[in-house]
Amino acid sequence: MNYRIVWNTLGKVLLAEALLLLLPMTAALVYRESALPFLIPDLLLLPVGAALSTVRPRSSDLFAREGFVCVGLSWILMSLFGALPFVLSGDIPRFVDALFETVSGFTTTGASILENPELLSRGCMFWRLFTHWIGGMGVLVFIAAVLPVSGNSYLYIMRAEVPGPTVSKLVPRVRKTARILYLIYLGLTVLECIFLLLGGMSFYDALLHSFATAGTGGFSTKAASIGAYQSVYLEMVIAVFMLLFGCNFNLFYLILIGQVSTALRSEELHIYLGIIAGTVLVISVNIMKLCGGFANGLRYAFFQVMTILSTTGFSTCDFDRWPELSRWILVLLMFIGGCAGSTGGGMKVSRIIILLKSCHAELKRLILPSRVKRVWFEGKAVSDQVVQGVHVFSLLYLLITAAGVLVLTLDGKDLPTNLTASIACISNVGPGLAAVGPSCNYSFFSGVSKLVLSLEMLLGRLEIFPMLFLFSPGVWRRR
Amino acid sequence: MNYRIVWNTLGKVLLAEALLLLLPMTAALVYRESALPFLIPDLLLLPVGAALSTVRPRSSDLFAREGFVCVGLSWILMSLFGALPFVLSGDIPRFVDALFETVSGFTTTGASILENPELLSRGCMFWRLFTHWIGGMGVLVFIAAVLPVSGNSYLYIMRAEVPGPTVSKLVPRVRKTARILYLIYLGLTVLECIFLLLGGMSFYDALLHSFATAGTGGFSTKAASIGAYQSVYLEMVIAVFMLLFGCNFNLFYLILIGQVSTALRSEELHIYLGIIAGTVLVISVNIMKLCGGFANGLRYAFFQVMTILSTTGFSTCDFDRWPELSRWILVLLMFIGGCAGSTGGGMKVSRIIILLKSCHAELKRLILPSRVKRVWFEGKAVSDQVVQGVHVFSLLYLLITAAGVLVLTLDGKDLPTNLTASIACISNVGPGLAAVGPSCNYSFFSGVSKLVLSLEMLLGRLEIFPMLFLFSPGVWRRR
Repeated sequence: MNYRIVWNTLGKVLLAEALLLLLPMTAALVYRESALPFLIPDLLLLPVGAALSTVRPRSSDLFAREGFVCVGLSWILMSLFGALPFVLSGDIPRFVDALFETVSGFTTTGASILENPELLSRGCMFWRLFTHWIGGMGVLVFIAAVLPVSGNSYLYIMRAEVPGPTVSKLVPRVRKTARILYLIYLGLTVLECIFLLLGGMSFYDALLHSFATAGTGGFSTKAASIGAYQSVYLEMVIAVFMLLFGCNFNLFYLILIGQVSTALRSEELHIYLGIIAGTVLVISVNIMKLCGGFANGLRYAFFQVMTILSTTGFSTCDFDRWPELSRWILVLLMFIGGCAGSTGGGMKVSRIIILLKSCHAELKRLILPSRVKRVWFEGKAVSDQVVQGVHVFSLLYLLITAAGVLVLTLDGKDLPTNLTASIACISNVGPGLAAVGPSCNYSFFSGVSKLVLSLEMLLGRLEIFPMLFLFSPGVWRRR
Repeated sequence: MNYRIVWNTLGKVLLAEALLLLLPMTAALVYRESALPFLIPDLLLLPVGAALSTVRPRSSDLFAREGFVCVGLSWILMSLFGALPFVLSGDIPRFVDALFETVSGFTTTGASILENPELLSRGCMFWRLFTHWIGGMGVLVFIAAVLPVSGNSYLYIMRAEVPGPTVSKLVPRVRKTARILYLIYLGLTVLECIFLLLGGMSFYDALLHSFATAGTGGFSTKAASIGAYQSVYLEMVIAVFMLLFGCNFNLFYLILIGQVSTALRSEELHIYLGIIAGTVLVISVNIMKLCGGFANGLRYAFFQVMTILSTTGFSTCDFDRWPELSRWILVLLMFIGGCAGSTGGGMKVSRIIILLKSCHAELKRLILPSRVKRVWFEGKAVSDQVVQGVHVFSLLYLLITAAGVLVLTLDGKDLPTNLTASIACISNVGPGLAAVGPSCNYSFFSGVSKLVLSLEMLLGRLEIFPMLFLFSPGVWRRR
């Protein structure tokens, strides 16, 4: 383990967080609130961050395990410091609650412990929704975009933070890739903000909801989430942007450089759109009686399918009251999540495709053992190693979900609550069913359960391995 | 596809069923009931079976796909004919209900649609519990044991019917292997019957409960299952035999030929016993308040863990009223099931071990990509192909469970009912939680749901592939 490069990277992350805290501080000042809840964390972050970033690595060797450790530790530290404004402002007095809310923010989960988020101070509300934007694309990708990073070894860090079974660089240089990603991210966020303003949303709400949509987070400034606006236009704008932020960002890059047809040929995109179309149709029919007609059913179904599949977690109605079929479909969509290379969570559409294709290949092999059957995805043969990696990832995903439920049962809630809370957290969705349904919150869970759910959110956002390796003694050994 | 060998095998299976129906017919005659419900199916089975078995295969080539098709079709035909006695006797008037009960019997699930099984005629009750015994070891293994089979090609049929990721022949010849398995099976059944008689059970009940334990089925002659006897001795005898029938039968063979230490070194056995010890302990502590003390907790916990892990499905108490932690542990145990080569269902302990070890190997590979890390099981390296096969199997298992729930939701029951019904059927356990809990039954489900659950039971018992291939056009093509 190259410890020095880890310290150095952590230092940069803390400095970046100090920088990012200036935005909610400004918001607090604009709304004539105290700047102290943001100033005090900054006064801690700046010296610690500066001290750590002066550690000069003896070698710039950075491999998979350094990448995992950097990312895992960064996200834990960011969350610990990021929780301070909520505690210092008195908005969320208990630290474990503030930590849950912050982790939920950074991981773009959107599960809240707040009974009524509208009671938050303006500054903290800004920070709460801004964490979604930071976490959506990732703070280490941000650092790669703005700071000079040492060559392509930083790719291991990108790999650990950017979701998907394989990470491809858009352009040969890591730094330029990170910049392009952040520019697309920023551009789409601004675009959504403009559309929301056109629908009559206030600038403050439009900006914050754009942050929350871009990161596929799901926190809202309103207690009733997007349902509070009772506006079909706003719902559709947000639903479409949830769809866009659930797409692989590589596609937007391809479109930007004029390769529209290549982008539209993406297999993952087709399946993603197919899942949306299929489930929206089934749910619309299933809920049409409840909603007074097919058109209304379509409206609610499209919004909720997008909010769950993109793992955002906004709501316009209480889907916990929908028929069992629709509820179960939503649970299954939670597992799937967005596309690889999107800001969405879940297992990712591309992994689901690879899993299903490998099943098909195995079935073929069983009846015709002589023929070698490979898995093809996006026009390329997928190596056995990647297939095996995807299977292991999926299995760990399910095991962690099941283990999480085991801890939650101790709080005495029912099976639908425990199961969907665990899924909604590891998939970074936010709301689940029953006692964690869209009209409820996570405040009733014990401190231990909240910590376990926070861990699940981090495991889900960082796609398991970076967090898991922090618990492995082998990773910490010097070579 | 070698169709002639398929017809020939199906003919033998139908003749075997005609033969096996003579036992319940005798029981009916002894108890002065009508023999017609068993005679009429026999009059159908005999000519059809005889006609099919006269088809002479042009070649004795029998490969994987013929093996799968033979086994899949055999089990469906057996169930269709096996349901007739229930309908003809008027005990279960609706055919779909009788089919559900028969499939549940043959697949050793033990899920029942009967409100009160004690109202059944003696002959039908005998047939109901005898189906467990037939299905436990498998009817094609039975045929291999009693009829002259053409060489080792029959191994493909054994492979398709005997559970586990890999099937090893105990001795070089298939026929002798099948005989040894059936003799061990018969011996243990007789032994249990003697122990139950010593505990004061009537011969009829002792024999039938031995059938149900041996096949890890779970039907009982009593409405309150084993709880009806209120006897600690009987509970412990049955629990211990459930433990034994959940073990790999190879171990009993090794013990019989004097290789006791080899048998006791089995890794799968250690993990199996470890799972039992661990979960019994946790559940005992969790339910001790409810049951009035740790000793009573231990008694109920041991019986229920064994009944669920061995996928038998007897009950001595309503575990649906247990705390959430214990309930969730039982749900997880349903997935695990017995050991490979046992009569138990579920995914099998050996598959769980291979899955977890492959996760460990993958994690090692991620941090040290240069080193090749193999999966070792029972002292041998497991090939990548087997590991991949186990992953695909597990994934299909979960997908089928989730798809089953999708159909069940249409009946409007709650999530715990639908989820555990689907798991309890594919894992061949029988009782689940909530509306399919141990004090309830499956009668309320719609006809479609009952057919889907029957299909899940068959998929689970035959370990997916033989049933799945029946739906694949590729399998039916001539070479």
